[in-house]
Amino acid sequence: RRELRSRMELLIMETQAEVCRALAALDPGASFAVDSWERKEGGGGISCVLQDGEVFEKAGVNVSVVSGLLSEEAARQMRSRGKSLKAKDGKLPFCAMGVSSVIHPKNPHVPTMHFNYRYFEIEEADGTKQWWFGGGTDLTPTYLNEEDAVHFHKTLKEACDKHDLKLYPKYKKWCDDYFYIKHRGERRGIGGIFFDDMDSPSKEEVFQFVKSCAKAVVPCYIPIVKKHCHDSFTPEEKLWQQLRRGRYVEFNLVYDRGTKFGLLTPGSRIESILMSLPLTARWEYMHNPPESSKEAEILEVLRNPKDWVH
Amino acid sequence: RRELRSRMELLIMETQAEVCRALAALDPGASFAVDSWERKEGGGGISCVLQDGEVFEKAGVNVSVVSGLLSEEAARQMRSRGKSLKAKDGKLPFCAMGVSSVIHPKNPHVPTMHFNYRYFEIEEADGTKQWWFGGGTDLTPTYLNEEDAVHFHKTLKEACDKHDLKLYPKYKKWCDDYFYIKHRGERRGIGGIFFDDMDSPSKEEVFQFVKSCAKAVVPCYIPIVKKHCHDSFTPEEKLWQQLRRGRYVEFNLVYDRGTKFGLLTPGSRIESILMSLPLTARWEYMHNPPESSKEAEILEVLRNPKDWVH
Repeated sequence: RRELRSRMELLIMETQAEVCRALAALDPGASFAVDSWERKEGGGGISCVLQDGEVFEKAGVNVSVVSGLLSEEAARQMRSRGKSLKAKDGKLPFCAMGVSSVIHPKNPHVPTMHFNYRYFEIEEADGTKQWWFGGGTDLTPTYLNEEDAVHFHKTLKEACDKHDLKLYPKYKKWCDDYFYIKHRGERRGIGGIFFDDMDSPSKEEVFQFVKSCAKAVVPCYIPIVKKHCHDSFTPEEKLWQQLRRGRYVEFNLVYDRGTKFGLLTPGSRIESILMSLPLTARWEYMHNPPESSKEAEILEVLRNPKDWVH
Repeated sequence: RRELRSRMELLIMETQAEVCRALAALDPGASFAVDSWERKEGGGGISCVLQDGEVFEKAGVNVSVVSGLLSEEAARQMRSRGKSLKAKDGKLPFCAMGVSSVIHPKNPHVPTMHFNYRYFEIEEADGTKQWWFGGGTDLTPTYLNEEDAVHFHKTLKEACDKHDLKLYPKYKKWCDDYFYIKHRGERRGIGGIFFDDMDSPSKEEVFQFVKSCAKAVVPCYIPIVKKHCHDSFTPEEKLWQQLRRGRYVEFNLVYDRGTKFGLLTPGSRIESILMSLPLTARWEYMHNPPESSKEAEILEVLRNPKDWVH
């Protein structure tokens, strides 16, 4: 059996290819810009970005596999998260790999989707290896469609349940807590699953779990795109989508750990990190949707997350 | 002679009124939304926001005068800036007041302008009062117009030079350093002046300096708006403006100290803080203007700030 590291690398690449294939099939006129890049400290990645298509406003799928020595800043951040890392002469060899994606469709009735699955390994001074997985998949609709919300969460729950019934409820809550725009009192979207620092029960079992999650990306999202990408919409609905895009930008630039970490890491590829930002966004002063409107309906769910499946 | 605190309060109010009058005269069809708000811990403010006018896409002018007890977090941040603050039972009575404004015009040939002037006072355990002023005025053009850049900087320099010839060069550099979008290697705009923690030579003299700066806002900016607000522009120029708006959002959400402080302060008024964001913004993956284009010309100046007046 091949080493886990190379199986994870394979999973990352396969996930990127699978998602890009699914997006391209829905938006045949659009083409992906494919950029591969190298990091001078070791490793690199491939970014696939579709922009201004018929169905998708902006859709990016990134993979990266990097290795080298952990910076002091990064090591400090990891220690602040409760990791005890014993460095040799201050040096900590690491390997990090992941696939991440944000998909912003044009039609306001098609939600934005984000996913990310990653693996981290650090070698300590005495040769022991610390490792963990992280990731998640979450949905950000402009308008609430309960059927879609249930389908999305149900598909993720089924992927989790194959491994441990405790995982979905735990990671669903983690997702609601993580994607919180504190200054707005709103979540970014209607959630999904999110987890980090997952290192038990065993490397193999966590990998199998992550694999199930990654395989669930296409079935949880693509049917929703297909269902709504030809829905008609009004200029007012498009405007509300743009205001929600503004909130997406606020979360990503102010709170998202991955984005902040990336922006502060010397040598990281800014274009790949900020690929998550929408093509267009809008901020209106004091925009408050009227009570009982469709706009107020989604806000209510963003303020008070619901359980979509039991 | 009235106490400085009330004279500063008056200056703040006058500056707001003066700037709003000048904007309204240029965009007579548009109207300001005027909201006054109170902070339950003490004090309040007035926000004037013009949105989607003929000349201005979004223009906001805020004043606030707040007082109370400094939060632990705020006190820590001030200490980290080198202030030694002796609290009585952990309590530090403070008073903060300021005027701040961001003006985003519609026409890509009219630059965005930001200014902010503020006064801070803290009472220590032994009754001594620490005080300081901060502020600045800076310009963010979509395209470079050297004549405008010179006019803007020259007007600010003249306001500074009346007080001390060392001020303009020092605060011009501080402005270039402060409005730096590190992850892009670009400044937000072509600068102006910026200063903080100014507490010498004397309270009265610093106040007079701040007054001169505040009085320079209208003459440094309004002539530029008048000159270009009827310039014709192409869809490509509008698009470049939108991309630059995206950078403005990046600076404000990722780096701006005032915005970050506001977002993290419980009880602060989010709508007034985020009034600085443009109505619309755009992010394109890997947008690189061609060499020797007008877009490349402004980028060059944002990467390598110039001296506009000597």
